[in-house]
Amino acid sequence: MQTEFTVTTRGPGLYEFTGEVAGWLAGQGDGLLTLFVRHTSCSLLIQENADPEVQRDLRNYFHRLVPPSSAPEMAYLSHTQEGPDDMPAHIKAALLPVSLSIPVLRGRMRLGSWQGIYLFEHRNAPRTRNVAAHLLA
Amino acid sequence: MQTEFTVTTRGPGLYEFTGEVAGWLAGQGDGLLTLFVRHTSCSLLIQENADPEVQRDLRNYFHRLVPPSSAPEMAYLSHTQEGPDDMPAHIKAALLPVSLSIPVLRGRMRLGSWQGIYLFEHRNAPRTRNVAAHLLA
Amino acid sequence: MQTEFTVTTRGPGLYEFTGEVAGWLAGQGDGLLTLFVRHTSCSLLIQENADPEVQRDLRNYFHRLVPPSSAPEMAYLSHTQEGPDDMPAHIKAALLPVSLSIPVLRGRMRLGSWQGIYLFEHRNAPRTRNVAAHLLA
Repeated sequence: MQTEFTVTTRGPGLYEFTGEVAGWLAGQGDGLLTLFVRHTSCSLLIQENADPEVQRDLRNYFHRLVPPSSAPEMAYLSHTQEGPDDMPAHIKAALLPVSLSIPVLRGRMRLGSWQGIYLFEHRNAPRTRNVAAHLLA
Repeated sequence: MQTEFTVTTRGPGLYEFTGEVAGWLAGQGDGLLTLFVRHTSCSLLIQENADPEVQRDLRNYFHRLVPPSSAPEMAYLSHTQEGPDDMPAHIKAALLPVSLSIPVLRGRMRLGSWQGIYLFEHRNAPRTRNVAAHLLA
Repeated sequence: MQTEFTVTTRGPGLYEFTGEVAGWLAGQGDGLLTLFVRHTSCSLLIQENADPEVQRDLRNYFHRLVPPSSAPEMAYLSHTQEGPDDMPAHIKAALLPVSLSIPVLRGRMRLGSWQGIYLFEHRNAPRTRNVAAHLLA
């Protein structure tokens, strides 16, 4: 069973779509869920969905770990023609997951109490992102 | 076929549980193993299990890459109320795997000669960690 | 259905093998592809395959993020007897994927337009690397 989720983004940060995934799985039995993001400048992430500060801190940490290519310390980068946020986005996409595999029991993902599923956007401009989903039931 | 592994931790570092997983798989046929950690402040990791220095160096590298939120250079973090090791633990959980997928042949994981499976704990206090496991046989 | 891909490397950097994987899948139906690298000093990576500068920039970023153990700032590392590129290779293998899960539709991976599959080599000396593949059809 396969589908595709769409996540609309408005700049760098985490966009939760746990509810959409849970809705698609409802009524299914046991199985294995795979999510795969079909882009090279955003990521998937499982993270705490209790305190929104966690999501802000994550965005800010990765912005410091991989500064825009216009920053002096990033002068060694050569792929800069698509904007200062482009090559850092590729680097963040290497550091963060492109796919997630989650066991499913009686139609429910075996997430921990505080785990949510996020699309982590790395580009500045608004985007529409596609996540391929596969359920092995 | 699904189960859950429990790993007891005593502070930051790598805790191997390859043997427990191998034991569960023994007697099975071909398939695909998925491990998924049900927390946002620890990780799964496949790493060298020959020299314990590798595991110590990994812990120390990640401690430097993501210092405690009490460190001056981390003053921009706002999620600090659960202790100086909490937000760094979330960041490390973003940088390291939450799920692992390993092909299985005749009941044995297709690990390389030096690969072991670890729970990478990021919190200071002792914890009991749960890893969901799914075998598609 | 299982197989193994071999990637020959000549020093740090990204080696694409999307074509080999696509060839193996051709003629298959729907399913889930899992790739798993059987080493602890190289990685798998999905990245842009349009501009080779992206691949060079990625290699250079990770070289700066994890310098050779002979660099002064890495003096705290103790696993150094296998060469200055060895422990950094283990660290990069922790930061980058060991396994990838990709949904397959009518024998084709659901990759985005610019996504290619790479072996990311972290060691300096030439190597032969093995990637286990599992197709659930």
